[in-house]
Amino acid sequence: MNKQPIGYLDSGVGGLTVVKEALRQLPHEKVIFIGDQARLPYGPRPAEQVIEFTWELTHFLLKKNIKMLVIACNTATAAALSVIRPKLNIPVVGVILPGSRAAIKATKTGNVGIIGTNGTIKSDAYARTIHRKNQNIQVTSVAAPKLVSLVESNEYQSVIAKKVVAETLAPYKKHPVDTLIMGCTHYPLLRPIIQNVMGDGVTLIDSGAETVSEVSTLLDYFDIANDDQNYHPEHEFYTTGSAQMFDTIAGDWLGMSQMHAEKIDLKRLIPQISMEMEQ
Amino acid sequence: MNKQPIGYLDSGVGGLTVVKEALRQLPHEKVIFIGDQARLPYGPRPAEQVIEFTWELTHFLLKKNIKMLVIACNTATAAALSVIRPKLNIPVVGVILPGSRAAIKATKTGNVGIIGTNGTIKSDAYARTIHRKNQNIQVTSVAAPKLVSLVESNEYQSVIAKKVVAETLAPYKKHPVDTLIMGCTHYPLLRPIIQNVMGDGVTLIDSGAETVSEVSTLLDYFDIANDDQNYHPEHEFYTTGSAQMFDTIAGDWLGMSQMHAEKIDLKRLIPQISMEMEQ
Repeated sequence: MNKQPIGYLDSGVGGLTVVKEALRQLPHEKVIFIGDQARLPYGPRPAEQVIEFTWELTHFLLKKNIKMLVIACNTATAAALSVIRPKLNIPVVGVILPGSRAAIKATKTGNVGIIGTNGTIKSDAYARTIHRKNQNIQVTSVAAPKLVSLVESNEYQSVIAKKVVAETLAPYKKHPVDTLIMGCTHYPLLRPIIQNVMGDGVTLIDSGAETVSEVSTLLDYFDIANDDQNYHPEHEFYTTGSAQMFDTIAGDWLGMSQMHAEKIDLKRLIPQISMEMEQ
Repeated sequence: MNKQPIGYLDSGVGGLTVVKEALRQLPHEKVIFIGDQARLPYGPRPAEQVIEFTWELTHFLLKKNIKMLVIACNTATAAALSVIRPKLNIPVVGVILPGSRAAIKATKTGNVGIIGTNGTIKSDAYARTIHRKNQNIQVTSVAAPKLVSLVESNEYQSVIAKKVVAETLAPYKKHPVDTLIMGCTHYPLLRPIIQNVMGDGVTLIDSGAETVSEVSTLLDYFDIANDDQNYHPEHEFYTTGSAQMFDTIAGDWLGMSQMHAEKIDLKRLIPQISMEMEQ
């Protein structure tokens, strides 16, 4: 009976694709989410800066007494997971391993595609992870940075979105795959368009949704799941950007008409957190 | 680069459904499997005896220097996982949690069925596990002990098998489900027949296959995966029963024409192991 919340962080609203699946699969686990809209996108930033920003979001969540941290952002996972995990005494989960495992499980032809931000694709984290487990799998990586802004600007159902997605995925006509990892938590909002372009025969892997399987596994393994079924947690959502913009997209995506995110100022909070941590 | 093997135990050949998926998803991880054919089925036995037998198989595998133990048997998981896990210093994985998690993920109507041995159904382990995570899911459990002997007697493609499966699954006509957990590692060998009886609209959950996801997750989490892709392990298979019978079913099921299981005598080995453990 561990009612402590699980913390989720992302550069923007994309990480809510993980939260959506968490709310469905683990309805009795309290969610605290923070999106760093003020500084997105993370994709084009140098790894050092992504690590710094991810630490700041992590400190904010640790103050909320979380029992597990989910880095619900592919760019931040690629850059910061291996740095942050050994320094915390709670389980830390990223989105790249769950997505890689799911792709290995799903592919029949052994041809797997990956789309992600420039940062994620440049890190080669997915391909390396997959090949470490199974070197026979052919991986075709394509950077798809434009897809993030389509989502963050709430244009993910527009005609422009269809055109951009079709152009971005064109390389897969030359290099067919039977499994495509949506290697950025923003992409599942574009799922119907991506599926349409790739064709029904291609299995789309939602790394975020797969991540909830790992969260669930570790909750059980470390025996820290909340098993009070009468507990209906009040989830908390924070953004460093516009709360109104966040409420619109997040409310729509999560089906929460009463979504009220709180805008926070990390710059104001961080010195305070640092001082406390030094004590 | 951890080349130590992963140990799998089962009452019979059923656990090979887990191994089959492990060989596919984790080709560089060495498998050591032991099936207790001499004493199957475990389903009707009292829990105390199942715990005792599971300990014996566990000791055999620990002597092989395994880095992880997979209790690839639902009856043994229900009875012995919670007893064995805290006593070993390696990760111990059962099949019930992975199957439960997969069903929660898959169901859309919230109506989930479970078939298992008498021991598994009597333990109520699946229903309890699912309800601890999500009390809104309706669980309909059906004991299906006859299905195990169909598999162990190599009759799993026969006309009799079709008749027995149809009779066993009849309760689901009155209580429709959209997801059915095959809660015994023997059942996936009957998958085509089960799918045919249940209809295409029902998602069948292979607890064993789902267990490999947990194995893969924990290998990564504890950083004990073998990442030498040039390592082509020679897997080892042991049975307490007829090696010839085992080779026939296992070779057929795993597609290994050169399967050569070794028959072992636990009774002869156990006193030796006990003596060493007391020292």
